[in-house]
Amino acid sequence: KQYRIAVIPGDGIGKEVMPEGLRVLETAAKKHGVSLHFDHFDFSSWDYYEKHGQMMPGDWKEKIGKHDAIYFGAVGWPAKIPDHVSLWGSLIKFRREFDQYVNLRPVRLMPGVPCPLANRKPGDIDFWVVRENTEGEYSSVGGRMFPDTDREFVTQQTVMTRTGVDRILKFAFELAQSRPKKHLTSATKSNGISITMPYWDERVEAMAKKFPGVKWDKYHIDILTANFVLHPDWFDVVVGSNLFGDILSDLGPACTGTIGIAPSGNINPEGDFPSVFEPVHGSAPDIAGQGIANPIGAIWSGAMMLDHLGEKVAGKSIVEAIERTLAERTLRTKDLGGNADTTACGKAVADMVD
Amino acid sequence: KQYRIAVIPGDGIGKEVMPEGLRVLETAAKKHGVSLHFDHFDFSSWDYYEKHGQMMPGDWKEKIGKHDAIYFGAVGWPAKIPDHVSLWGSLIKFRREFDQYVNLRPVRLMPGVPCPLANRKPGDIDFWVVRENTEGEYSSVGGRMFPDTDREFVTQQTVMTRTGVDRILKFAFELAQSRPKKHLTSATKSNGISITMPYWDERVEAMAKKFPGVKWDKYHIDILTANFVLHPDWFDVVVGSNLFGDILSDLGPACTGTIGIAPSGNINPEGDFPSVFEPVHGSAPDIAGQGIANPIGAIWSGAMMLDHLGEKVAGKSIVEAIERTLAERTLRTKDLGGNADTTACGKAVADMVD
Ligand SMILES: CC(C)[C@H](C(=O)O)[C@@H](O)C(=O)O
Ligand SMILES: CC(C)[C@H](C(=O)O)[C@@H](O)C(=O)O
Repeated sequence: KQYRIAVIPGDGIGKEVMPEGLRVLETAAKKHGVSLHFDHFDFSSWDYYEKHGQMMPGDWKEKIGKHDAIYFGAVGWPAKIPDHVSLWGSLIKFRREFDQYVNLRPVRLMPGVPCPLANRKPGDIDFWVVRENTEGEYSSVGGRMFPDTDREFVTQQTVMTRTGVDRILKFAFELAQSRPKKHLTSATKSNGISITMPYWDERVEAMAKKFPGVKWDKYHIDILTANFVLHPDWFDVVVGSNLFGDILSDLGPACTGTIGIAPSGNINPEGDFPSVFEPVHGSAPDIAGQGIANPIGAIWSGAMMLDHLGEKVAGKSIVEAIERTLAERTLRTKDLGGNADTTACGKAVADMVD
Repeated sequence: KQYRIAVIPGDGIGKEVMPEGLRVLETAAKKHGVSLHFDHFDFSSWDYYEKHGQMMPGDWKEKIGKHDAIYFGAVGWPAKIPDHVSLWGSLIKFRREFDQYVNLRPVRLMPGVPCPLANRKPGDIDFWVVRENTEGEYSSVGGRMFPDTDREFVTQQTVMTRTGVDRILKFAFELAQSRPKKHLTSATKSNGISITMPYWDERVEAMAKKFPGVKWDKYHIDILTANFVLHPDWFDVVVGSNLFGDILSDLGPACTGTIGIAPSGNINPEGDFPSVFEPVHGSAPDIAGQGIANPIGAIWSGAMMLDHLGEKVAGKSIVEAIERTLAERTLRTKDLGGNADTTACGKAVADMVD
């Protein structure tokens, strides 16, 4: 079967790292007999917005809604267009309208990446953060009353539905069950947030009964963030609400020094809609146009995309090529103490794929 | 003037560390001509609950509401009494009913404390987390609909009032202004939490205008937690909502290895009600009764209490005595690689006070 991939480079360094991601994907596909077809789109970008006054064409869903996956660079150019227009007009729209209810990110200590934690070696830290990606704290329900007076107040609701909570927990338990350690950690705050978080805990307990092979535990989000720093080796799969998952999936990569190279998937597991794979980093206006951006986040996201499509062997070959590349100082980009530019680093990874 | 202090040891190691806190307070008070009077109370504890079926007497407000401050050990004994009963029946009650709208915690790399971050030395990390302590995400507004059906959902409102937001920001800006770096960082998430967080940002901007001498910046909570790990030296005073402050004030001490010795203040700055000073650690049932608990958190909380009462010189003398004690391995407790027991460590700090 041929996979049809929608490619959206977006803004800034998104445009620079995507060619390297595609290079590596093509190499891995060829080696492993996977057939990929790429369609390129220029929307979800400042350039497009400037020309059309909107982030995406009216028929964006027809244009990319039937693809097997979306391979995304980076969006946003805060000096030119406010975040809430660029992000809510594209990425967050995809999450909602393509029902990408899983946000998945690896937390993995890679060779060659300086770790901000003392005394940790590659292999010590290797887990996944599974984030609910459609509801929870990111709701649009709420408002302001008594504006511009002393009585002014705002409210915003956190909303958790049984459907929304159960399906993310199921995904997380299944992922845990597929891994050697079979260990799931749930992020909660039921001692302080007294309505929604106890409900989350309740659903975790109910779901756990269906996965008797998975050991599970839970931590309040405050001490959980502390444990990411103190005991990152404790974790295997960590699941959290939209906000808690957002926090943990930035903090985790920070603890492994990989925030600049971390990948992510916004996944609709049922495949009713395409999933989006994109590096965690943004468009980085400060270094855009210099050819020095680190392409590893985009390349690694490509590996996650292959994985999602079921091409696990090809995906794994890319992750291993990344590890071999990072291990060589000269093949790394400047941000990781090397001297390769974006293209040289991308070519190095492609060469390492086998 | 004589200060009247209500002393509540609470549960578990709370009862073991408080005598050391009092020992050091008495020493410092004597040396600096401060007059302290202590009244002891047995409520806010499992023992009290067992006898009386409630955490506190009906007239608890009359009993401790007129004191100049409350010096607190630790509460909670999860195997015997659920957290929400013990915590919401005492600590959280104090915060609300004594309008302790500031939760204040230092993040400070101390000598002799193993730092989980690579290559950081005492002096590198030294900031305060200021947390809103009465409203925000910890609201009691919300509920459940369609229970036990597929349509089941729960909601909980985050509530921010102008009064609530402005007064915590004012406290934080004033604290920043009093420090050499005069730098304030605000925790937000206005790119995702689209109603309450933009309001928070709006109030920060308005308050900043009244403090032209303070440099300020803001970070989304996800990247802010990452920066606690990657750049803890960037911060001077960090202010956040109830939830964000809760997270940051556990993560910060974790980054400095001091989660077991960190102090905290729950403060009503106007002095209409007494403020509560307590170590961050809990009652630690697993080590209670062995005499090995680290008393530094309680002692350091005593220093914060003196500071709050306006006795800055006496407070500082305790913090310096803590630093000198921690620097000597033999004077530290077991958790910090030493061999002193709770009493020996407390006596050592008292001896160091000058
Ligand atoms: C016990 C809990 C309710 C409390 C909080 O979240 O406020 C604690 O974590 C704290 O920081 O004092
Ligand atoms: C840009 C922002 C709205 C987004 C989020 O909070 O979801 C980002 O932090 C992410 O993690 O993808």
